[in-house]
Amino acid sequence: MGVEYDGTDFHGWQRQVDTRTVQASLEEAVGRVANHPVTLHCAGRTDTGVHALEQVVHFDTTATRSERSWVLGANVNLPPDVAVRWAHPVDESFHARFSAFARHYRYQIMVRRTRSPLQRNRAVWVHEALDLERMRSAAQHLVGEHDFSSFRAIGCQAKSPVRRVHYLDVAERDELITLGIGANGFLHHMVRNIAGVLIAIGRREAESDWTLELLRVRDRTLGGVTAQPHGLSFLRADYPETFHLPQVAHVDPLQPLAAD
Amino acid sequence: MGVEYDGTDFHGWQRQVDTRTVQASLEEAVGRVANHPVTLHCAGRTDTGVHALEQVVHFDTTATRSERSWVLGANVNLPPDVAVRWAHPVDESFHARFSAFARHYRYQIMVRRTRSPLQRNRAVWVHEALDLERMRSAAQHLVGEHDFSSFRAIGCQAKSPVRRVHYLDVAERDELITLGIGANGFLHHMVRNIAGVLIAIGRREAESDWTLELLRVRDRTLGGVTAQPHGLSFLRADYPETFHLPQVAHVDPLQPLAAD
Repeated sequence: MGVEYDGTDFHGWQRQVDTRTVQASLEEAVGRVANHPVTLHCAGRTDTGVHALEQVVHFDTTATRSERSWVLGANVNLPPDVAVRWAHPVDESFHARFSAFARHYRYQIMVRRTRSPLQRNRAVWVHEALDLERMRSAAQHLVGEHDFSSFRAIGCQAKSPVRRVHYLDVAERDELITLGIGANGFLHHMVRNIAGVLIAIGRREAESDWTLELLRVRDRTLGGVTAQPHGLSFLRADYPETFHLPQVAHVDPLQPLAAD
Repeated sequence: MGVEYDGTDFHGWQRQVDTRTVQASLEEAVGRVANHPVTLHCAGRTDTGVHALEQVVHFDTTATRSERSWVLGANVNLPPDVAVRWAHPVDESFHARFSAFARHYRYQIMVRRTRSPLQRNRAVWVHEALDLERMRSAAQHLVGEHDFSSFRAIGCQAKSPVRRVHYLDVAERDELITLGIGANGFLHHMVRNIAGVLIAIGRREAESDWTLELLRVRDRTLGGVTAQPHGLSFLRADYPETFHLPQVAHVDPLQPLAAD
């Protein structure tokens, strides 16, 4: 399934006891349609406050329903801040997390003198102008295959800190700056840590080759502040075409998406 | 003052007893800065659920504060869903409502098969594809000076039903259709009534010259459904340059604004 959610009022993706999470809401809704309990796996777990335009999830079921029935049935059982966009049957070789060969996120920054009520849950607010050329130059150092230890959360469970970043673009439209990033995978807090470093560089608190230095030292304690979660959105994940997933979100990091 | 708000959790602009309104929130916050009660007047009152990117308001005060103090002082006293963007002193000839010679609104429509959690408070959801050429053709009939009686709410207090519409554009980006409209003034529910008619025409429930017919018959009971409020945003108002207002919102109806 492809799933969109507004992360503002969820305590992130992952099911926890006595907490409102995307996974728990979806498992309940999908379980009602399946008529048996389901366990969902997603392409990329998201933190509290992080949004998704097209998260991909899978589950095993013995139920036979049309794609339309899965979608409509789940949506009538879901709260307003989460919805299923599509459903498609896949064979047992598919795994939402392990079959994805790339993931795409974006991070939004609102640059203006006063806070924005309309963007308060969608973009982080920065008061002062950011130096975009500096940010772009710093971003380019991160593209390619690197050890991202300086950008991974202390508790990150991944076996290897090496990831390949396919692109890291810095786009601007009016007061909104959008970082668009795609990689074969992400470490825990990697996008938010990259955003924190790029914002500091944009503010001229550091030189644009700080990103190079951080790749070299491989030390999270030198990597600066983790940017706030609410600027982050999971955009989409890429899967082999053999699964024929009816995915909808485009990757166009040069402009914010329709569902801003 | 220029004011932005997310109208979702407000019962509209106008102060009412025991109800959360934008006017009441702002009057309380500004009154604290002024150190005396204030009464606010706005460029265009908005209904429950309607947003504003740059509503303009004025008030009389005996207090002397810097522009910066008015802005920062009001914002620390305001809830997260409303903020003052700028403040500027004007002489007694200024009136937020009567000095405005034009107003600009936009109305957002999300066209897709499933509801959108991220747009649920910002755009109305239409399931089926809309015929944009038909909508554009229908929209052009409304541009110019006309009697908009078919598009005014039954309880509308305006003396004359005649208004001059400067432009009425229909733009599309991905799944989001934006109606951008500017006029010398608007009758009560006029934008929502126009949006309702254009959506019906886009759905092929009516021909594109239905707008011409409605202008001719001047009868609200024939004018179709009032579109839902949450797709509507007050964009900005235009004032004589002699007031030197430091306004910020652009009018670019061809693309959704940064603060979507």
